[in-house]
Amino acid sequence: MYNYTIYCILGSFLITSSFELEQHAARKANLNRSLWPLKSSDSLKYSLKFQYTYSTAYFTLPVDHFGFANTDTYQMRYLYNMDYWDKNGGTILFYCGNEGDIEDFAINTGFMWDISKQMKAMVVFAEHRYYGKSLPYGDKSFKDAAHLGYLTAEQALADYAVFLTSFKATTVGAANSPVVAFGGSYGGMLAAWMRAKYPQIIIGALAASAPVLQFEGVTPCEAYNEIATKTFARYGSNCVENVRRSWEAMTDLYNSGASGQAYLKKAFNLCGDVKTADDLADLKGWLTGAWGNIVMVEYPYPADFLQHLPAWPVKGVCDNLQQPYWDSPSTLVTQISLAAQAFFNYSNSFSGSCFNTTSEPDTLGADQGWGFQACSEMIMPMCADNKNDMFEVSAWDLDSYVKECAKTYGIVPKPNWIMTNFLGVNVTGATNIIFSNGLLDPWHGGGVLRSYPEQNITAIIIPNGAHHLDLRGHNAADPVDVIAARDMEIGIITQWIADYQREH
Amino acid sequence: MYNYTIYCILGSFLITSSFELEQHAARKANLNRSLWPLKSSDSLKYSLKFQYTYSTAYFTLPVDHFGFANTDTYQMRYLYNMDYWDKNGGTILFYCGNEGDIEDFAINTGFMWDISKQMKAMVVFAEHRYYGKSLPYGDKSFKDAAHLGYLTAEQALADYAVFLTSFKATTVGAANSPVVAFGGSYGGMLAAWMRAKYPQIIIGALAASAPVLQFEGVTPCEAYNEIATKTFARYGSNCVENVRRSWEAMTDLYNSGASGQAYLKKAFNLCGDVKTADDLADLKGWLTGAWGNIVMVEYPYPADFLQHLPAWPVKGVCDNLQQPYWDSPSTLVTQISLAAQAFFNYSNSFSGSCFNTTSEPDTLGADQGWGFQACSEMIMPMCADNKNDMFEVSAWDLDSYVKECAKTYGIVPKPNWIMTNFLGVNVTGATNIIFSNGLLDPWHGGGVLRSYPEQNITAIIIPNGAHHLDLRGHNAADPVDVIAARDMEIGIITQWIADYQREH
Repeated sequence: MYNYTIYCILGSFLITSSFELEQHAARKANLNRSLWPLKSSDSLKYSLKFQYTYSTAYFTLPVDHFGFANTDTYQMRYLYNMDYWDKNGGTILFYCGNEGDIEDFAINTGFMWDISKQMKAMVVFAEHRYYGKSLPYGDKSFKDAAHLGYLTAEQALADYAVFLTSFKATTVGAANSPVVAFGGSYGGMLAAWMRAKYPQIIIGALAASAPVLQFEGVTPCEAYNEIATKTFARYGSNCVENVRRSWEAMTDLYNSGASGQAYLKKAFNLCGDVKTADDLADLKGWLTGAWGNIVMVEYPYPADFLQHLPAWPVKGVCDNLQQPYWDSPSTLVTQISLAAQAFFNYSNSFSGSCFNTTSEPDTLGADQGWGFQACSEMIMPMCADNKNDMFEVSAWDLDSYVKECAKTYGIVPKPNWIMTNFLGVNVTGATNIIFSNGLLDPWHGGGVLRSYPEQNITAIIIPNGAHHLDLRGHNAADPVDVIAARDMEIGIITQWIADYQREH
Repeated sequence: MYNYTIYCILGSFLITSSFELEQHAARKANLNRSLWPLKSSDSLKYSLKFQYTYSTAYFTLPVDHFGFANTDTYQMRYLYNMDYWDKNGGTILFYCGNEGDIEDFAINTGFMWDISKQMKAMVVFAEHRYYGKSLPYGDKSFKDAAHLGYLTAEQALADYAVFLTSFKATTVGAANSPVVAFGGSYGGMLAAWMRAKYPQIIIGALAASAPVLQFEGVTPCEAYNEIATKTFARYGSNCVENVRRSWEAMTDLYNSGASGQAYLKKAFNLCGDVKTADDLADLKGWLTGAWGNIVMVEYPYPADFLQHLPAWPVKGVCDNLQQPYWDSPSTLVTQISLAAQAFFNYSNSFSGSCFNTTSEPDTLGADQGWGFQACSEMIMPMCADNKNDMFEVSAWDLDSYVKECAKTYGIVPKPNWIMTNFLGVNVTGATNIIFSNGLLDPWHGGGVLRSYPEQNITAIIIPNGAHHLDLRGHNAADPVDVIAARDMEIGIITQWIADYQREH
C-alpha cells in the first residue's frame, strides 16, 4: 500500500500538461483521492474556441456573510450576456461558479448558451471566491488560515444570493425575473445547495454530476474507483487486468534495483529518477491520476483540452492494453506507458521533453483553493482495494487525513459539516432540483440517482455520459441519451419558469 | 419629534424593575423602536414557579461554523427532560433558544412540557450563543466586534444543527427520532428559519409570534405602533386619545419651566430630574416602552413576571384613562402616571423608591447581545405618526440608524441580509411550518398571516392572544381561541411525526 493523490477534473475539465498540481505535502501525508482541481493556466486556452461573448463586471461583497468580526469586502467577478434576454422579466440562467476561473466554465457550459435563445434568457456566470480573479485578499489570499478561512461553500452561496438580489434590483426588467441555477461537479453541488438554502432566490437548479452524497458515512469510499474501473472495462477485461497488475509490476522493477529503476524512468519518459519509495509513489500517483481522470472526460467526441483527447479517450488508452501482458513486469510497464501516452501525449500534443510526476504547489493557483476546501469541509472519502477496482490498494483513514489537513492549514477540518449543513442523506428537504449523472463518470457514485416526484426532484441518468456531458454544448456526436437528458432538462426548467410566472 | 427607544419583551417576557436596559447611546442616536431584549435578572426569578425539572449539560461548538479563520470553540448550554420520552425513536421537542437565559424559556414554554407526555417526547432547550451561560468568550464576549461578531442568527442555527446531529447520534434510541422545532418571538423566527435551512434535521417548526417579515422594505414601519394602539383601543377611545395627547402635554409642562419640570418629576415618581431635553426624551422613552410592551403581555390571566401583572393588564392601564383629561396637561400627566403605575407598580410590587428612566448599559447582559443583533442584521424598522397610532411622532431613518450602529459597534450593519438569507417575502421555499400570531400582539404586523397549503405552511390566528400565548402552559383562563390554536398545532405536529415515521 502506498500513498497517492489523484487529480480530479471536477468541473473545470482542464488538465495541466505537467500535472503540476499535486500537493506534495498532501500526498506524502497519506491523503487519498480528493477533489484536487486543476489549475487554470493561460497556456491551456490557446486552443479553446471562444464561441461566446460576454461582458465582465465586478460586485462588492462582504468577505464574511455570517458574522461581523471581519468587515472586509472583496470584488467578485461575473460574466453576463443579454443577447437573447427578454427585458420584460425574462429568465436568468445563472451558473454557480466552482473551483476555477469562471471564464473556463462560461466557455465550457454550452448548454446554457444553447438554451438562452429559445428561453429568451440572459446568462450570468458568477466566479467562486478564491478562484480566477475573485481573490478576497489578492496575492495574500492563500497565505494562511486567517486569509483562506473564508473559502467555504456557504460563503460562496451567500455571495451568489446577495449578488443576485442586488443584480435583479438594479438591472432594468430583471426585478421579477426567475433565476435558474446551473452547475457542474462541485458547481452542481453548489447549484443544488443554492436551491436548498435560497429557494426564494432561485426557482430551481440543474445540478449536473454533483456528488452531494460523496461524504463521510454516506457513500462508500470504494465507489469512485469501482466505477472508474467499470468504465475501463468497456474496452475489455484485459485492459482492467493490466492496469490492476501494473502496480505490482512497477514495484517489482523498482525492487529489482538500479536497472529496473532506470527502466521505469525511461519507459515513462520521466524527467526525474525513480530511486526512492517517494519517487515510485509519485509515479504511481501520476498514473492513478490519469486513470481516475480520463473516465471523467470519456466524451463521445474529440475534446480540445490540453492533450487534444480523441473521442472516447479511454478506448485510446485501452487499445494499448488488449493482451495479457502481466507475465513480464517490463512488458507490462511498457504497455502501461503506451497507454499513458494515449492520455498524456495524444497526437503528440505534449510539448515538454519529459514528464514531471511531482511539482511543488504553486503560490497562487486554483489548486491551492481546492486543496484547502478538500481539507476543510469538502472531505470526500476515497479508497481502493485492487480487487473490485484496478487501482493499487489504498485505505481511507479519516483520522490521519484530518490530522494532516489540520497540520497543513492550521485549521480544524469539519468532515461531517457538509452533510449536517446541506441536504443531508435524505435530499427531500429541497424542491425543484435536477440531478443529472453520467454513468461513465465515477462521481456518480456520490450522486443522487433517484427521483422524488413530490419534491420535483428529478434524477436523470445518462448511460453514455461522462462528467456533466449534458452541460456541454450541442455536438453532432452526442449520444441519444444526452440529447434526451437535455430535452428533459429543458422541459422541467420550462415548467419551473411557467409555475413561477403564474404565481408572480 | 424626539428620539426614543422601546423595551421589547421579545420572547423572554422579563422586564427589569428599573428598566435598566436602555442603551443610552443608542437612544441618543435616534434609534427608533427596536427589539431590545430585557435583561434576565436573578431578582426576577424569585416568584417564578419552577414547574418543570430538567438536566443541564453543555456541548462544544465552533465559534464560527462558516469559515476556518477562527478555530475557537465554546460551550453551549442545553436543558433536557426525558420523563415521557419513548426510547424507541420517540419524538424530540426542541426549543430554539432566543435572546435570553434558556432557563427562562424552559419555564415559560409550558406548551412543550404539556404535550411531551401525550407525545411521549423528550424536551430539549438549547441556549442561544451570547446569552445566559453560553458565552463564547466569557466576560469578554461583549468586548468588541472581534468577540461579538459571531453573534448571528445563522451561527445560532448552525449551533442547533450540529448539536442536534450529534445529540441524536449519541443518545440511545434517538438516532432516528424526528425533531420538531419550537420557538417564540425571535425564537420563533429561528424555528421557522431552522426548518427552512435544515429541513433534513427538523421535520417541522412551530414559529409562534415570529415577525419574520418585520424587515426593511417589507412590513411598514407603522405596523407595530398601530397594532399596539388597537389593543389599547379595546378599552375605549379615551384611553388611546389620552395617551396620544400625553406627549404634547409633557412637552408643554417641560416648556413651562421649573415648576412644570418639577411636576413631571413628582408625578411620575422619578429618581432623576426632568431638566433637559434628554431628560424629557428619557421619560417619554420610558413610557413608550411601557405602552409598547404591555400589549405583548396582554394575557388573560395574572402573569407573575416582575410587576405581578394582572389578567388583561392593558385594562388596568386604561382604567385610569377613561375620561378625556387632555384639557389640562397636568391632569393628563397625573392620569398617565397612574396608568403607568398600573404597569410598573401593580399591587405595589415595585420595590424601589423611585423610577429610573435611564441607565447605562450593563457590562454582561442579554441587552448587550440583543443590542448588537438589532444593530447588525436584525434591523426592524419602527415608526409612529401620532395619528394612526397613539405614540409620539417618530420617523424611521434607516441611514442614520445604520450609521449609528456602525459607530457604536464598529461593524457594517446588513439591513437587507435577513430577507436575502432566510425565507424572504415569499415564504413558500420552506415547508412544514406553523406561524401562529396573536392579534393583540403588535409583532403580528411582521408575521406570516396566510397559509400556504401546498407547502404545509399554516397560519394560525389567535384573536385574543398576546405575544406567543399559545406557547405558554395550559391555564384555566385560556380563551377558547388559544385552546383551539394549540389543538390545531398538536394535530399538525402529530401529522408531521406520522409522515416522518412512515418514511423512516
